[in-house]
Amino acid sequence: MPVARWLDLTGPEVAALPAGTVAVLPLGAVEQHGPHLPVSTDWVIATAAAEAAVATVGERHPEVAAVLLPGLAHTKSDEHAWSPGTLWLSFETLMATLVDLGRSLQTSGISRLLVVNGHGGNSALAQVACRELRRRFGLRTFLAHPSAPTDQGGGTSAPGEHGMGVHGGHTETSVVLHLRPDLVRMDLARANVPHGLRDFDLIGFGKPVSFGWLSDDFGPDGHVGDPTGATAEHGKVLFEAAVEHLAAVVVEAARFDVGGAPR
Amino acid sequence: MPVARWLDLTGPEVAALPAGTVAVLPLGAVEQHGPHLPVSTDWVIATAAAEAAVATVGERHPEVAAVLLPGLAHTKSDEHAWSPGTLWLSFETLMATLVDLGRSLQTSGISRLLVVNGHGGNSALAQVACRELRRRFGLRTFLAHPSAPTDQGGGTSAPGEHGMGVHGGHTETSVVLHLRPDLVRMDLARANVPHGLRDFDLIGFGKPVSFGWLSDDFGPDGHVGDPTGATAEHGKVLFEAAVEHLAAVVVEAARFDVGGAPR
Amino acid sequence: MPVARWLDLTGPEVAALPAGTVAVLPLGAVEQHGPHLPVSTDWVIATAAAEAAVATVGERHPEVAAVLLPGLAHTKSDEHAWSPGTLWLSFETLMATLVDLGRSLQTSGISRLLVVNGHGGNSALAQVACRELRRRFGLRTFLAHPSAPTDQGGGTSAPGEHGMGVHGGHTETSVVLHLRPDLVRMDLARANVPHGLRDFDLIGFGKPVSFGWLSDDFGPDGHVGDPTGATAEHGKVLFEAAVEHLAAVVVEAARFDVGGAPR
Amino acid sequence: MPVARWLDLTGPEVAALPAGTVAVLPLGAVEQHGPHLPVSTDWVIATAAAEAAVATVGERHPEVAAVLLPGLAHTKSDEHAWSPGTLWLSFETLMATLVDLGRSLQTSGISRLLVVNGHGGNSALAQVACRELRRRFGLRTFLAHPSAPTDQGGGTSAPGEHGMGVHGGHTETSVVLHLRPDLVRMDLARANVPHGLRDFDLIGFGKPVSFGWLSDDFGPDGHVGDPTGATAEHGKVLFEAAVEHLAAVVVEAARFDVGGAPR
Amino acid sequence: MPVARWLDLTGPEVAALPAGTVAVLPLGAVEQHGPHLPVSTDWVIATAAAEAAVATVGERHPEVAAVLLPGLAHTKSDEHAWSPGTLWLSFETLMATLVDLGRSLQTSGISRLLVVNGHGGNSALAQVACRELRRRFGLRTFLAHPSAPTDQGGGTSAPGEHGMGVHGGHTETSVVLHLRPDLVRMDLARANVPHGLRDFDLIGFGKPVSFGWLSDDFGPDGHVGDPTGATAEHGKVLFEAAVEHLAAVVVEAARFDVGGAPR
Amino acid sequence: MPVARWLDLTGPEVAALPAGTVAVLPLGAVEQHGPHLPVSTDWVIATAAAEAAVATVGERHPEVAAVLLPGLAHTKSDEHAWSPGTLWLSFETLMATLVDLGRSLQTSGISRLLVVNGHGGNSALAQVACRELRRRFGLRTFLAHPSAPTDQGGGTSAPGEHGMGVHGGHTETSVVLHLRPDLVRMDLARANVPHGLRDFDLIGFGKPVSFGWLSDDFGPDGHVGDPTGATAEHGKVLFEAAVEHLAAVVVEAARFDVGGAPR
Repeated sequence: MPVARWLDLTGPEVAALPAGTVAVLPLGAVEQHGPHLPVSTDWVIATAAAEAAVATVGERHPEVAAVLLPGLAHTKSDEHAWSPGTLWLSFETLMATLVDLGRSLQTSGISRLLVVNGHGGNSALAQVACRELRRRFGLRTFLAHPSAPTDQGGGTSAPGEHGMGVHGGHTETSVVLHLRPDLVRMDLARANVPHGLRDFDLIGFGKPVSFGWLSDDFGPDGHVGDPTGATAEHGKVLFEAAVEHLAAVVVEAARFDVGGAPR
Repeated sequence: MPVARWLDLTGPEVAALPAGTVAVLPLGAVEQHGPHLPVSTDWVIATAAAEAAVATVGERHPEVAAVLLPGLAHTKSDEHAWSPGTLWLSFETLMATLVDLGRSLQTSGISRLLVVNGHGGNSALAQVACRELRRRFGLRTFLAHPSAPTDQGGGTSAPGEHGMGVHGGHTETSVVLHLRPDLVRMDLARANVPHGLRDFDLIGFGKPVSFGWLSDDFGPDGHVGDPTGATAEHGKVLFEAAVEHLAAVVVEAARFDVGGAPR
Repeated sequence: MPVARWLDLTGPEVAALPAGTVAVLPLGAVEQHGPHLPVSTDWVIATAAAEAAVATVGERHPEVAAVLLPGLAHTKSDEHAWSPGTLWLSFETLMATLVDLGRSLQTSGISRLLVVNGHGGNSALAQVACRELRRRFGLRTFLAHPSAPTDQGGGTSAPGEHGMGVHGGHTETSVVLHLRPDLVRMDLARANVPHGLRDFDLIGFGKPVSFGWLSDDFGPDGHVGDPTGATAEHGKVLFEAAVEHLAAVVVEAARFDVGGAPR
Repeated sequence: MPVARWLDLTGPEVAALPAGTVAVLPLGAVEQHGPHLPVSTDWVIATAAAEAAVATVGERHPEVAAVLLPGLAHTKSDEHAWSPGTLWLSFETLMATLVDLGRSLQTSGISRLLVVNGHGGNSALAQVACRELRRRFGLRTFLAHPSAPTDQGGGTSAPGEHGMGVHGGHTETSVVLHLRPDLVRMDLARANVPHGLRDFDLIGFGKPVSFGWLSDDFGPDGHVGDPTGATAEHGKVLFEAAVEHLAAVVVEAARFDVGGAPR
Repeated sequence: MPVARWLDLTGPEVAALPAGTVAVLPLGAVEQHGPHLPVSTDWVIATAAAEAAVATVGERHPEVAAVLLPGLAHTKSDEHAWSPGTLWLSFETLMATLVDLGRSLQTSGISRLLVVNGHGGNSALAQVACRELRRRFGLRTFLAHPSAPTDQGGGTSAPGEHGMGVHGGHTETSVVLHLRPDLVRMDLARANVPHGLRDFDLIGFGKPVSFGWLSDDFGPDGHVGDPTGATAEHGKVLFEAAVEHLAAVVVEAARFDVGGAPR
Repeated sequence: MPVARWLDLTGPEVAALPAGTVAVLPLGAVEQHGPHLPVSTDWVIATAAAEAAVATVGERHPEVAAVLLPGLAHTKSDEHAWSPGTLWLSFETLMATLVDLGRSLQTSGISRLLVVNGHGGNSALAQVACRELRRRFGLRTFLAHPSAPTDQGGGTSAPGEHGMGVHGGHTETSVVLHLRPDLVRMDLARANVPHGLRDFDLIGFGKPVSFGWLSDDFGPDGHVGDPTGATAEHGKVLFEAAVEHLAAVVVEAARFDVGGAPR
């Protein structure tokens, strides 16, 4: 069963989408990912996962209506602003973009929006946007990740990463090896793990206290983690799990109701 | 020879692009195009034409360096804001996006930017942006169209359109029939030509005086023009001419120099 | 018959203007125009032409209601931002000003606005504003020029200018010699024509591809063109043609109707 | 001796203005002034007074350099936003305009700016701007009024106005009768004095506590004061005193120095 | 009788406040005040005076409803932006804050807002805000000061200050000696009076023409005035007078009515 | 040993703070917290915890320099915008405030900022701000909570809350009973738990997928949780643990170093 894509519909066809259709918005990033990964890493993952999830729902849950929105490739990569290759929006610009999209969706008759975010640096802003769109446009909004961002306490990490494979490390490299092996330069992969962070119990990636970091705080390489052991096989496992997860999220989002007063 | 795509490069590879590389940015739109064309019409055309032009340059002009940027699908479609399907950015948001991209390109070592704009509603704003990026970031900026927008005195038009096939008419429908025939509903195509405009000599599409219009000023259909006679064959001719044109533009942009003081 | 000037009316008199009155807004500029022309060049031309056009309409077309708004002298002269004498607004500021004026006109019961723009650097932004005011305030908006900007494919140009007399060249100098000969320093007039641009077929003033330029890209003089042969006689011809043109535009604007759904 | 006008100079002539030249910026307003005065009242007064003051300085103080800037007609008239005829800028837009002018003056080599404000509703914002321009552009900035605004404890008032002739009352009407008698409709002049305000000792026009008022808080007439006894003779006295005052301000501004560290 | 504090109420209790309740907002500042006074000087004074005034009203005027809002400590201290210790908001940020508060008060059912401003640098912006909140949210707004700012022609000044004790001088130092003697370093107090200003008749603190100043225009000390003779006794007199004044303002504000059309 | 408070220092004393001093900024909120808790709940908790933490560090770690900044009471409470009592800033305003503070801290010589956030609705925005301040002002920034927000997977919750005591529930009510028992109306406390959320595995408070909620999505009460079993004793335990935690965070923040390139 084909994926329902917003881009493929006419205006009247959008208007005719069923009530409660879940619109799925991939958020990627175009940003340096170290010497071994393409700048499109987060974009590749987010779009592939979102598309596969919508397809999965279409196959298994014909009663659930979902539509894939054209995603945003250029997002908030300010932590990589120093690097060639990064195309970043300020927080003001990305928020304005998301607000404009929310307004457009309201006019289009959409009431449920699921953001599938492939870039950890967008997570906080996307949360702010989810509330803003709920308040201003009445949208039910949801924020999901292909996997929980490692720097927010989720995801997987290779042993040598000590939970710090947050950007271009074992996990992301594996997934790109699975999805786009032609774009990975494993010959240039090297570990760049900020072991100094292990001296701190409270502050750090996935710890109770977050900190404002730029990727060049950890040296000139740009990535944070150890990609040297990444494999396409591991990437396949991770990716398929992400798709299963996101498909389940779409199904929940389609019937989500807090049971409160109508609004 | 493969197209050089920004998305496929690593950060260090972007940093190593030759001096004077022309970065090519497709600007599309996601907006209603009447009952017969997909909302992605401008996006499909802009990205296909930009990509083919970069490929053509790569094949014929190995001495010219060009790279295809990830394009912007969501742009300024305020004249279609009233319609389901349209995903539009305000002028502030799109200008902010283009300014942010300009800043990123400067950091990436890029000094030449060619905007390939597939949506007439972006043209004026893109001109403003081209100057802004020149002033703020020192970029040499260029604005080209797959074909000159009909409502700005260019393009072709079917006879019955009387020069008013500006949105979803003979030309655009033909090109989409060539590029993505699966997305065209010719069975729903009908003429929507604002013949009343012919009463005016000075004000109108392609006339000396422009006017601020919304697409629903011309009735509820949303398109403006007569798509009924569109054919894929005509679209192929138009598209190939556009690619030739844009490839020639890239070549000129790579050596463009006003001969003035260095800056 | 006297020109109806907004500035001369009381609030209740504005409220009593006939339905469909065309409000005419001159857009000038205060910006360097080379060593021989005053910084007010565009302002002088736009205000004189708009005023004469409104007067002409008043004399010949008593059935057409038009009112001259106080114009904007300070506008978007960012391409001359480098030079003493230029008083420029950013695009954000000028757009905000035009939006504020649109709101005010709506409150004043005005539904038709004609912008008479004397500065080519405002044209693109004014187009954006025309649509914005149509969408937000329901105004019918029109954008006219005393003559089509040379760098947009219109206007006249002296032979030695090869179509590049875009700023302080033959045309503008002639018109100012006609309107304000006391302000022209013909003894300092010299040619400053960027002949290098003739090497390009596609990119350039009035060519299919526009480029983002600053006036000091063409050297330190500031003007672009050859004013040495300018005469008041030629200026008189140009100016009177502009007034005739604009008067005709006012008449068309007063009855302009796209024949669409009422709005 | 002629008034030095910015508009009459070329770019290089602006660059050659003497160090310490005082640039004089008239701030007017285009806003309803009751049934008897034109919407240009504040603009007429501010520009006439500023021009006469610069001329006076030119005649009497050849050692003082001053130049008249093109003024701003459209300013912050939000208290009259409800009325036809008012063309108002939001505070954001007017501040942005003043900041842009400050930047332009800095580039032009100007270091002293005197704002001559004819509209009480601009006073507070102009004070904010004076500091902003000092901080951002190093300008020495000064804010003067043709007469101190009545609602700020200054000016004169007819007896029946009890100090409340703040807008279109005895004073302003007299001055416009002097400057532009053709624009005054004394047959429509009537008193509109908010006598209820006399019940308050602390809150009111010119009292220790200011309040946020809109002109329609005082009824539908729009003016506040009693213009019925206004005369051109009184207006002449007031206007000439204002010009004397402003000329003296220009002279002081040219040599003003707080004696602090150079900046 | 206890002071009614917004912070101590529940949401429903706020909703139940009597119609016409005067909400009192202290505006302070956190900014350098010379070597002898704490950065909290204006905040200490504004909050103490506002609180005492509300308490006084509660004791003497049980028929008047007033509630103390949580104040703003961080405000527009741009004239002290150069100094360590200053925590300043731009005018945009403070205006946005006040607009957001106005909106919140409207939702809370509040219709009367009294701003008690302890920092002269906020006065102009607070006036702008008072009008903005009246227009946008229908609030009756009032702006009072513990004492009229010296640089605006009010307040008291020690003889040696010649009316120039505008920041950290005799008056403010005395009041802080009364309220928080533990925070005053009288051993470091020294005079810093810009005597050069006495050469000007028209421009200066409390003179007809205001000027844009930064506190380091007057040398590196940061304060402006002569605190050496300050005493807690004098401060007590000043403070108690301020409280009496503000209490009387609250009472007037509660019944203030311009007698105009209902709005 | 007394708490070092920014408000108590003079400008020169701030300038003399030791290098590496940790500036601690409490972020509260003024927002409805149901019928039983004051609108100041988050503000009371954040300021009390931050102050006690700084005091604790001062007592136990004389080698660590920390200073308590004046906190922000009015923050981003948009999810409670519907309710009387809530004083909320838009995300733009709060971000602008935090950016302005970051700039001020940089000028003050501060390089380490710890945000102690008592309001879950601020968490995402504060993360965005922490990065922004790191990039723009070079500050090392940290974001801590008195306890991890329940809706972000942290905190404690009464059994009947099923992890949904996110606003005015068991935890917050207990802590306010400990800190300000005079402000709690236990007689009005009632459970308001959105049991419907238990039907969802993936979407919800503390679940992998967050959603954009407003507090009135859960009915008109405003709080979310079950405060009926709250006790001051439990609140004391929670509060003291929070203080211990925050004190340890301050100590870590003072020596935090990622070991990367100096910046």
